[in-house]
Amino acid sequence: MNYDQIFDEAISRLHEEGRYRVFIDILRNKGAFPNARCFAGHNGPKPVTVWCSNDYLAMGQHPKVISAMEEALHDVGAGSGGTRNIGGNTHYHVQLEAELSDLHGKDAALLFTSGYVSNDATLSTVAKLLPGCVIFSDELNHASMIAGIRNSGCEKRVFRHNDLEHLEELLASEDADTPKLIAFESVYSMDGDVAPIHEICDLAEKYNALTYIDEVHAVGMYGKRGGGISERDEAAHRIDIIEGTLGKAFGVMGGYVAADKKIIDCIRSYAPGFIFTTSLSPALVAGVLASVRHLKESSVEREGQQAAAELLKTKMRDAGLPVMDSVTHIVPLMVGDPVHAKKISDILLAEYGVYVQPINFPTVPRGTERLRFTPGPAHTAEMMDDLVGALVEIWDRMDMELAKAA
Amino acid sequence: MNYDQIFDEAISRLHEEGRYRVFIDILRNKGAFPNARCFAGHNGPKPVTVWCSNDYLAMGQHPKVISAMEEALHDVGAGSGGTRNIGGNTHYHVQLEAELSDLHGKDAALLFTSGYVSNDATLSTVAKLLPGCVIFSDELNHASMIAGIRNSGCEKRVFRHNDLEHLEELLASEDADTPKLIAFESVYSMDGDVAPIHEICDLAEKYNALTYIDEVHAVGMYGKRGGGISERDEAAHRIDIIEGTLGKAFGVMGGYVAADKKIIDCIRSYAPGFIFTTSLSPALVAGVLASVRHLKESSVEREGQQAAAELLKTKMRDAGLPVMDSVTHIVPLMVGDPVHAKKISDILLAEYGVYVQPINFPTVPRGTERLRFTPGPAHTAEMMDDLVGALVEIWDRMDMELAKAA
Repeated sequence: MNYDQIFDEAISRLHEEGRYRVFIDILRNKGAFPNARCFAGHNGPKPVTVWCSNDYLAMGQHPKVISAMEEALHDVGAGSGGTRNIGGNTHYHVQLEAELSDLHGKDAALLFTSGYVSNDATLSTVAKLLPGCVIFSDELNHASMIAGIRNSGCEKRVFRHNDLEHLEELLASEDADTPKLIAFESVYSMDGDVAPIHEICDLAEKYNALTYIDEVHAVGMYGKRGGGISERDEAAHRIDIIEGTLGKAFGVMGGYVAADKKIIDCIRSYAPGFIFTTSLSPALVAGVLASVRHLKESSVEREGQQAAAELLKTKMRDAGLPVMDSVTHIVPLMVGDPVHAKKISDILLAEYGVYVQPINFPTVPRGTERLRFTPGPAHTAEMMDDLVGALVEIWDRMDMELAKAA
Repeated sequence: MNYDQIFDEAISRLHEEGRYRVFIDILRNKGAFPNARCFAGHNGPKPVTVWCSNDYLAMGQHPKVISAMEEALHDVGAGSGGTRNIGGNTHYHVQLEAELSDLHGKDAALLFTSGYVSNDATLSTVAKLLPGCVIFSDELNHASMIAGIRNSGCEKRVFRHNDLEHLEELLASEDADTPKLIAFESVYSMDGDVAPIHEICDLAEKYNALTYIDEVHAVGMYGKRGGGISERDEAAHRIDIIEGTLGKAFGVMGGYVAADKKIIDCIRSYAPGFIFTTSLSPALVAGVLASVRHLKESSVEREGQQAAAELLKTKMRDAGLPVMDSVTHIVPLMVGDPVHAKKISDILLAEYGVYVQPINFPTVPRGTERLRFTPGPAHTAEMMDDLVGALVEIWDRMDMELAKAA
């Protein structure tokens, strides 16, 4: 048994497929985001504009968030020092859970160290408690939901993306007494499309299934108070479990679920991924508290983001760039080839100071490789013009086709 | 299918067994830890002394850690804004991984959002890459290691705790060509005993097995530079993968593994729990950088902790309290009954302002319920006298037996 050889081969496979990942080494400039410094392959840091951050509303540099974190640092220190049960349950955690359950109109909420862990721990724990549960999963669900479903050990039925007929067909084929759980996302982050929440809930009611929605690319950004697509569509009360992140629009780190008290109590009591881990640093929690409270009151950031996304899509379309259909803040540009996607990204960084990561398999299906832009309220029209100009030049240089200008 | 009833029953089972958990709501006082404020069941916060924190060396309040975090907050903001591959790879992350690989004398290291995720993601990913791998696991391994082993889908052989003969018997029963991985901890946190690292490595060499050690209750605290028991015992070079936490002795949050470059490259490229999650907040990473660098140079905190643990054990033994054998900084007091353990803890908090959580199943086996004290450099002799006095009074009040004073 030659272990080295096996590890070498595993790495070689990635190089051969053109999907070996190089992490770009950056530091963002607080107060001036999306400006940042890039450290890779230069003599000293070089200025770049970040176009691929999930700090969607730039809340990661909001003065309220920074000062709340600073205050907590000075009041209670850096880490929580323990699990939620053993020394790590701070008053900030208790307050944030109340704030998040209110945001979604639920009884209770529970914090996790990440959105990934929220999905993994919650789906696996809830489904495991329901004897013989069958899980109905949208085919484009995130890796963390897939992990939770697999770790539940339950039967899984995958329905075609947002396909209500297929979902109903699968639901109808199960016994009426079988526990059922429908798991889906609100905003699909690589395409920018949205789930038909009410129609899925109609089916859930008809077939007596629980519903689980991942709102990580929507919380903070949709709905009057930032409660996500389920708030915007007035469907939150019809969903059993709403999952969100604290690391994207809220600008900090961590994840959570909101649901009925008894469901939260079960997850809290039975999920190893919640029980046996040090709780979120109180400084992070304090920052998120400030962020959630701010975005409940303020719509300026949401409006700025929507306007920026609309403007960038228009500029790209006008230039003939293959911007994909997206009804949200996500602006994906189809490339369709992993090597091209990487090359465009490399040229943008080296020659134009534009940082956008290529999105390759396994994040998207092979043949649909793309660049994914996330304009926010801090991206200016001038930055967009620079970006579109650079893209058109590179498209031309690489002999790729542009559509006729509209 | 009545979902509510199933969730109700799951909660009732916990109440019946006396292991329904109530999280004590506290805020630690930075600069004055182990002093804290407790919010549960009082009119306003009440002062308490924390005896169950895993901020073992009080680094969570160290001025270097706090100011490094503050500086990062002001330089780059709150969250990283993305996964390591998409926008979330900051220069702090790169520097901390270099610092941690140096700490353990390895080529490379990789950060995770928690120690739980480190264990889960690494064990499952590495074992999955080795066709037909069999994992040998100490029976007292942490829940996160058990999760990683289960999620690898590999065959598992559980060996009796620290039992070399049993481990060898199991190793010898497998085919020589079968890939093998031995997973164990250095310090077992509920008993305070230590693994025979060299002897386990001897067996690994004899049977050509990879070795994986969890050092979460040792890093920062053992070895001249805080490299853990594997540094103290000069065995780090014999271990393939060393896993540690940033949330205990280093005082902040997060986890990591250190290993050969190609192993790290495999984990980085294949582990969903690493790839698909927002990276650690740069503020946390900056804090850990300061903490690790400080503890590489300074032994005052380690010596203070060892002296405190020794003193508390002596005082407890002298008072006839059933302190368990422990060769480390962990001071466990055997109670042997979940209801008694909870009651003692409740009286300590309500009447004496002492916060120590009862440790019940599933964290320890039934019948071995205990109180677990973690004295550190900031716990004074006077605090210990108060604690021991309180315990003796409660032991007496509850008609529990004390040993004859030595």
